[in-house]
Amino acid sequence: MAVSTPPLRALRWDGRRLSLLDQTRLPAEELWLAPAGAAETAAAIRRLAVRGAPLIGIAAAYGLAMEVASEPGLGALERGADELRDARPTAANLAWAVERVRAAGLAAGPATLAGAVRAEAQAIHAEEDDASAAIALAGADLLHGSRRLLTHCNTGALATGGDGSALAIALELHARGGVEVLACETRPLLQGARLTVWELARRGVPHALVVDAAGAGLIRRGEADAVVVGCDRVAANGDIANKVGTYGLALAARAAGVPFLVAGPTSSVDLTTADGDAIEIEERDPGEVRSVAGALVTLPDTPVRNPAFDITPAALVTALVTERGIAAPPGAATIAGLMA
Amino acid sequence: MAVSTPPLRALRWDGRRLSLLDQTRLPAEELWLAPAGAAETAAAIRRLAVRGAPLIGIAAAYGLAMEVASEPGLGALERGADELRDARPTAANLAWAVERVRAAGLAAGPATLAGAVRAEAQAIHAEEDDASAAIALAGADLLHGSRRLLTHCNTGALATGGDGSALAIALELHARGGVEVLACETRPLLQGARLTVWELARRGVPHALVVDAAGAGLIRRGEADAVVVGCDRVAANGDIANKVGTYGLALAARAAGVPFLVAGPTSSVDLTTADGDAIEIEERDPGEVRSVAGALVTLPDTPVRNPAFDITPAALVTALVTERGIAAPPGAATIAGLMA
Repeated sequence: MAVSTPPLRALRWDGRRLSLLDQTRLPAEELWLAPAGAAETAAAIRRLAVRGAPLIGIAAAYGLAMEVASEPGLGALERGADELRDARPTAANLAWAVERVRAAGLAAGPATLAGAVRAEAQAIHAEEDDASAAIALAGADLLHGSRRLLTHCNTGALATGGDGSALAIALELHARGGVEVLACETRPLLQGARLTVWELARRGVPHALVVDAAGAGLIRRGEADAVVVGCDRVAANGDIANKVGTYGLALAARAAGVPFLVAGPTSSVDLTTADGDAIEIEERDPGEVRSVAGALVTLPDTPVRNPAFDITPAALVTALVTERGIAAPPGAATIAGLMA
Repeated sequence: MAVSTPPLRALRWDGRRLSLLDQTRLPAEELWLAPAGAAETAAAIRRLAVRGAPLIGIAAAYGLAMEVASEPGLGALERGADELRDARPTAANLAWAVERVRAAGLAAGPATLAGAVRAEAQAIHAEEDDASAAIALAGADLLHGSRRLLTHCNTGALATGGDGSALAIALELHARGGVEVLACETRPLLQGARLTVWELARRGVPHALVVDAAGAGLIRRGEADAVVVGCDRVAANGDIANKVGTYGLALAARAAGVPFLVAGPTSSVDLTTADGDAIEIEERDPGEVRSVAGALVTLPDTPVRNPAFDITPAALVTALVTERGIAAPPGAATIAGLMA
């Protein structure tokens, strides 16, 4: 009899309590956190214990649901929403999920507020799980025949409500007959080295780890049939904010003539952001660059610039793959069509 | 009375013995090595205790001189030359310097072999020191008015016979009125974080450290007036082999319309290499990627691709700056002109 293994998930909800796999400890240790309300969930988001734009949205929704469950009322709803919304600035999904849950609470009467908020958070979670599955199928159809993918950061089960966005496409291609993945390590926090490699190893997908700087040259040498990445925010014109390093890979894909796919749920699309230049790029702590795994790698007080994201212009994106369909290329018209 | 500080140097020659600053220990520790002959010098080159294409050439020349001094004769000359020439494959300067010293030994009679070899090594050292100075002046003239440079890897006194190639241009612009340097950390071995930052701090040049993946996005945002890098080998058609990550920065510079300068002595030019595709790219140990500063950053047996260099096509290079002049843009005709 075949052994059934449960799907890999980094977030669990038992109907009342949230559990988060602490992604800062991976791959050395699988430690689960139990944030008690909005403040603790926001703290977990800020320190990247939970990360990945779609997963941040789901965690924030549950954080707000727990806040309102322990102290029902509009005061807790608004205070919790404020705390969570500001935890990180760049990903669209965070504000989107907080606003959806808050609106559900406001629409409910005082007696049903907690239940309405919880139901909305659960709906978001279920929708994001479905979105991962739809993205995997659509992206794999689009990349039919591609055997070697290059990806950046982590866009798998550790980043979303389901099996992932870009990485779910790789998993689907693996299931359809085989794929090899070149995973960029993703400095400073090494989500590729720590998380993507861990997911691919658990799934049995052939892969190799490379430093971020090697990506462009390997693409030039013809070692990737396509580049697939996720997205933290998609502007109305199709410009993409994603993990720092994405833009350079997009330039290399264009120069080499290979497809550059961006995958993500429509919860990452923000029609109120006109273009990439309007997206706030989070600058994180210098210590993330100065040290690796606790070891100082430069002089202790070295000045640092540490943008966590960069902008890839829509013109460099072959296709945006969402659960509602594909925008190829993404632009004002195709994005508006998806969101209609 | 002003205090005169000696120039920063990573290699010393006292007429008989070579001393090398162990660059694997920087910036934590300044440890000097004293390799005894060709084999120990080759070992220091292989493990990157001494690195930087021009400095590798000088070290190899002295390694061969020491070998022949301790055992005069053609046997030691040929054996030492073989050992040193094969220590690393990509940089042109290594084979160039070994061949120059070997030819000087072959041309001398048995009685004068050791002296001729030593004199040739010292001549190479002096020429490379002069080349650094000439490159600094020519590059600074070319970049007149640039206040913000982005650079990759280490191309300073720790990489050359003098003050450097690309980094010497930054130092000269600093002396002429001010410059700020964005230094890419240069994974896997962090020459930017460990060496470039250390040199810039000692010289009082304003700088900031960034992860390699951030370079392209910062260039796109207009935060660099020019990109300046060194070179490990220049092919006859002007294609450049340099530290992995260079190619992506060249693409970003072109997309942003900012100059992309490659600086290096003509000892890095190899007219026998037709183009970039003919350059052997060294693939180094997976452990360099799996661990940082001794700490494992991924699963212990993760498959790795670890190319140490990449190729930047000549078409992306605004100018090649050498001690013999500038090839702008580099190409078969301009390179041949420089080398004539």
